[in-house]
Amino acid sequence: QRPRELGIEIGVMPTGELNAITDVTGVKVGHTTLIKGDSVRTGVTAILAHGGNIFQQKVPAAVFVGNGFGKLAGSTQITELGNLETPVILTNTLSVPTAMNTVIGYTLNLEGNEQVRSVNAVVGETNDGYLNDIRGRHLTEEDVLMAIKTASETNTEEGNIGAGTGTVAFGYKGGIGTSSRKLPESLGGYTVGVLVQSNYGGVLQINGVQVGEELKNFAFDNQLLNNVDGSCMIIVATDAPLDSRNLERLAKRAFLGLAKTGGIVSNGSGDYIIAFSTAEGVRIPYQIQTPTLKQEIVHNDRMTPLFMAAIEATEEAIINSLFMAETMTANGRTIEQLPVEEILPLFKNRR
Amino acid sequence: QRPRELGIEIGVMPTGELNAITDVTGVKVGHTTLIKGDSVRTGVTAILAHGGNIFQQKVPAAVFVGNGFGKLAGSTQITELGNLETPVILTNTLSVPTAMNTVIGYTLNLEGNEQVRSVNAVVGETNDGYLNDIRGRHLTEEDVLMAIKTASETNTEEGNIGAGTGTVAFGYKGGIGTSSRKLPESLGGYTVGVLVQSNYGGVLQINGVQVGEELKNFAFDNQLLNNVDGSCMIIVATDAPLDSRNLERLAKRAFLGLAKTGGIVSNGSGDYIIAFSTAEGVRIPYQIQTPTLKQEIVHNDRMTPLFMAAIEATEEAIINSLFMAETMTANGRTIEQLPVEEILPLFKNRR
Amino acid sequence: QRPRELGIEIGVMPTGELNAITDVTGVKVGHTTLIKGDSVRTGVTAILAHGGNIFQQKVPAAVFVGNGFGKLAGSTQITELGNLETPVILTNTLSVPTAMNTVIGYTLNLEGNEQVRSVNAVVGETNDGYLNDIRGRHLTEEDVLMAIKTASETNTEEGNIGAGTGTVAFGYKGGIGTSSRKLPESLGGYTVGVLVQSNYGGVLQINGVQVGEELKNFAFDNQLLNNVDGSCMIIVATDAPLDSRNLERLAKRAFLGLAKTGGIVSNGSGDYIIAFSTAEGVRIPYQIQTPTLKQEIVHNDRMTPLFMAAIEATEEAIINSLFMAETMTANGRTIEQLPVEEILPLFKNRR
Amino acid sequence: QRPRELGIEIGVMPTGELNAITDVTGVKVGHTTLIKGDSVRTGVTAILAHGGNIFQQKVPAAVFVGNGFGKLAGSTQITELGNLETPVILTNTLSVPTAMNTVIGYTLNLEGNEQVRSVNAVVGETNDGYLNDIRGRHLTEEDVLMAIKTASETNTEEGNIGAGTGTVAFGYKGGIGTSSRKLPESLGGYTVGVLVQSNYGGVLQINGVQVGEELKNFAFDNQLLNNVDGSCMIIVATDAPLDSRNLERLAKRAFLGLAKTGGIVSNGSGDYIIAFSTAEGVRIPYQIQTPTLKQEIVHNDRMTPLFMAAIEATEEAIINSLFMAETMTANGRTIEQLPVEEILPLFKNRR
Repeated sequence: QRPRELGIEIGVMPTGELNAITDVTGVKVGHTTLIKGDSVRTGVTAILAHGGNIFQQKVPAAVFVGNGFGKLAGSTQITELGNLETPVILTNTLSVPTAMNTVIGYTLNLEGNEQVRSVNAVVGETNDGYLNDIRGRHLTEEDVLMAIKTASETNTEEGNIGAGTGTVAFGYKGGIGTSSRKLPESLGGYTVGVLVQSNYGGVLQINGVQVGEELKNFAFDNQLLNNVDGSCMIIVATDAPLDSRNLERLAKRAFLGLAKTGGIVSNGSGDYIIAFSTAEGVRIPYQIQTPTLKQEIVHNDRMTPLFMAAIEATEEAIINSLFMAETMTANGRTIEQLPVEEILPLFKNRR
Repeated sequence: QRPRELGIEIGVMPTGELNAITDVTGVKVGHTTLIKGDSVRTGVTAILAHGGNIFQQKVPAAVFVGNGFGKLAGSTQITELGNLETPVILTNTLSVPTAMNTVIGYTLNLEGNEQVRSVNAVVGETNDGYLNDIRGRHLTEEDVLMAIKTASETNTEEGNIGAGTGTVAFGYKGGIGTSSRKLPESLGGYTVGVLVQSNYGGVLQINGVQVGEELKNFAFDNQLLNNVDGSCMIIVATDAPLDSRNLERLAKRAFLGLAKTGGIVSNGSGDYIIAFSTAEGVRIPYQIQTPTLKQEIVHNDRMTPLFMAAIEATEEAIINSLFMAETMTANGRTIEQLPVEEILPLFKNRR
Repeated sequence: QRPRELGIEIGVMPTGELNAITDVTGVKVGHTTLIKGDSVRTGVTAILAHGGNIFQQKVPAAVFVGNGFGKLAGSTQITELGNLETPVILTNTLSVPTAMNTVIGYTLNLEGNEQVRSVNAVVGETNDGYLNDIRGRHLTEEDVLMAIKTASETNTEEGNIGAGTGTVAFGYKGGIGTSSRKLPESLGGYTVGVLVQSNYGGVLQINGVQVGEELKNFAFDNQLLNNVDGSCMIIVATDAPLDSRNLERLAKRAFLGLAKTGGIVSNGSGDYIIAFSTAEGVRIPYQIQTPTLKQEIVHNDRMTPLFMAAIEATEEAIINSLFMAETMTANGRTIEQLPVEEILPLFKNRR
Repeated sequence: QRPRELGIEIGVMPTGELNAITDVTGVKVGHTTLIKGDSVRTGVTAILAHGGNIFQQKVPAAVFVGNGFGKLAGSTQITELGNLETPVILTNTLSVPTAMNTVIGYTLNLEGNEQVRSVNAVVGETNDGYLNDIRGRHLTEEDVLMAIKTASETNTEEGNIGAGTGTVAFGYKGGIGTSSRKLPESLGGYTVGVLVQSNYGGVLQINGVQVGEELKNFAFDNQLLNNVDGSCMIIVATDAPLDSRNLERLAKRAFLGLAKTGGIVSNGSGDYIIAFSTAEGVRIPYQIQTPTLKQEIVHNDRMTPLFMAAIEATEEAIINSLFMAETMTANGRTIEQLPVEEILPLFKNRR
């Protein structure tokens, strides 16, 4: 069960209908989960900004690097041009090239892209090498393509799925989590949706409650550094018409949401946030008809509610990933799921 | 009283002796508080990396821009050269030039600086214009100089003092706050100290407790955007021998501490973190004797405990500023102090 | 005489009518020159993006830091918000605070700004301390204000004027220089104008000709490091409707123009480029009436001609500053002007 | 023949012995050239910072993004951690994943790396799609591995080789070029070496001479935008002991060298500079024995000669690539080599 169903309501803003990134109209999410034998526990998650040909109808986008001990592909072109032209893929650290190759092939083969000779594949990762035989690089291009092809506008899957299959967070089983916020009409009525791949450490805090301390399980408690490394990939989507500069600012707020879960963004963490706008009015056509683009974008002064939404949705997406993940065993190692029953009493009589 | 004296212990790491930035050996802090008549409520805070001639013995430093709606002076040179060559001054938004002029004059006049023709004055600010007649620009160079001259290695003052005299945070009286963390010897034994000038908004959270929600006083609750703007200046000092790259990473973690207080880093916020190392072994002499510098610096892999210390000390410094500030009236406006008695019961039986 | 009048035509694109930054409609430039006694050789240059209240009608803007050994004020807010809200002032290194204070006062006093409590004064500088008694800080707020007040849309002054009064470039007298390029209508018909304050070193190259080598006067030729330090402030204006992201890219190209003059951007150089768009359609009103901004901006794919224009205009503006500056003596030191007669033969029979 | 053999001496500093990046002790370079049938004209170039296990003995490194329309892999981790842990590979745009996969496999398989689960593969590219069937992605992992395995400390190959096999620059055949500079002992005696993959456009200038104009072949001359896009990858190696901050500054100077060839860094250009230091004293061991690193690094104040060396070596490396490349035909298209005989007279009687 998601924490919200258990009475744990993170933040003060209302969620979207699904409380998922797919609340942002047009966004599609797909997962391929690869669990084989004793040692393969990995997968792929695909996030599509819209259902059309993204290369031909690019979306404004930005990247914020929380901590760059990671292999995110495609970041410099997003920053330079301010847009995203492919699905965003999440996977494990050593399968980034396979995912890139798939995205390139997928894009080259789309109708209308017959003359395309350059594709900026955007692929993020975290390291699932504790539970997964990551050195084996078991994911195939077919696995990646399936995540793209099966992506759906109603997907709300969480936990041990897709790129979250083998991840670990705060010493418990992590995974995919997602959440959303919807602004009141007076503040624009926009939706902000977040999807995370949680795989990092710190001192777990859930809606303010110091769960890590209560469970006596946190960074440096036992002088073990290992379990604080890892990473968190965060994808932020919104239907607010934003340019890349304000998307970068939005991405930076997601980093604050990560902080509220107790994440410490350790040296070994690869924490990146990719933010994009799905608003049709700010699409960037590949084939331009006119030398200028007309667009209507949110004013700086109206960004703050969107910032707050990104913080809240990120915090909740991460906590969702922990609540929805289940105990997993591989390689003779077991990572337990968050002991929800044990910690629920901590939330009694609290906000 | 500081929250820790009231039983509110933020974080899991031990504090330094004073629980203040001055726990970092050599760091000096001084304040000038200017309260005059009905409408002047402002001041200056000076932080000195060491007691010598900082221009002649520069310290490694870095800046992280949380949100750049602010007038921080000196940032690009810190980033380019990786060092700090003056006291750091905090004041109000429109008094930055006065403070810069003072720092320049102070530096030119130091013994040994007779031939100096370039000074990178580092001055941060937040906007105290709600309680202070900021347009009047009442601070003088003498006021600024006094903060520098009276700086002391044992200063632990907080609340309505110095640059925090007229600031407002989360709708309550903000001000200066400070805190520190000391790493165990096994992790290096280093101290990280933080000083903040709190003047911003969001949904106040104190050691995880949703105080803003309890008090029904938070951003967008009543659709008023005004009180979320403002800014937070954060100074991080450490005796760990760090180069500027790792100081920038340390600064970024202080931003996470801000998040944990419920800060949302609104559009109108000028949130900057300046981090420096006081370790003598990494000083940068102005007059170089040799073409190379010998230094011994902390390895990337040993940074994580310092990161965690910066997060905790920043969170606590901000909360300290709220607990230590007192109700202030000016211009016919009153900003109440945090209702500590009212909220203390919220912390009972909680971590 | 300007080099173009002497037959030295830099680049392949046509200039604007004045071959000056004031070719960009609405841009105003003013100078205050302070020459007093034996040792005061300094000044102020003001560049106004338009003739109205810039605070109320901000312009999109960006900063590129070529080398950050400088004291440029206002950069972080330009980057964060993507706009400029004051005149841009150039002056000497130690007079930045005086200029900031003037800009703040000027802005606070403009009609319509009665409630303004925050002003991002943008002030750049180079160090004229070789010819000028810079430690004396002789410029007053009146001097700065006069540069703003006397700014004109037809100003084309160059050489020993305003902020260029006491500067030195490549061992010769530097100063203010300006140039422009006009794109053919087929490429948008836009104008790009540049103004520079030249005060740096390297191996002087004029329209490709290795003048520094011919004159046996260049960096490290005689092992003297002194004359390569200094700085170059570069202001780029355009009437092309650009957002801040593409303005940052345009600014970066001006840096390439600096390279073509033989500049090496030494360690001690403070080289900054500020770019802004004067197009009325992309102004950002301070008082917003609607939550969104409608704008029509140049597409990424049409930026290249503007890039080329910025490179050429910057190169020519710098060379203009050298040709137009005259020998100056102060403090018992003389800096000779570029020996134009001597070098002119080098350009015979050459492009 | 290289231009220097023809009397065209770029810059004022002496070259290293080979006038190549391999003048930097320990640096190894290898190429795989793939020319097949009518349409395959591509390849791989590998640059190794030293001959040992680079993952175990990382080198300080930095990246500067000149223009980010490119797919450089590995940049964020270099920036965050300040180091490089693999060979640097250059190839074509769509073969980046293949090269990454090879680098990952190569690194995992090195002796001592049996437990490694994270590898930051650094792969740059330019788009050779005019002469090469880039959509066919013909390069194999074996091709990439061969470039690494055959890398040699004496390699000085240039022109149509490796990653330069199918590239085009200024409308002529581009390719691989390399050059170096050696500082006098009084300035440290360091060597700076550069290797480029030239594939871009502008208005060709060779040692200052306006060759593009003379040949009536330059950007916008005929309103054709096509030939200005493309990219330039630049690798800068030095034996000077530099930290990552000063390596980033060094990388930025290489961008200035590009400018001096007439490059305009068009919208569609992916221009990146990767700089690293080979000095043994600044290596970063993967397995750390002590919490701190001792190092002796060049002082900021001594960087300027290195900057100048990077500018000169980059300019010459690019010009070398043009002189050494030969006419190539593929897909029914022919790209001519630079008409050296025709332009040589332009250099008579000139510096």
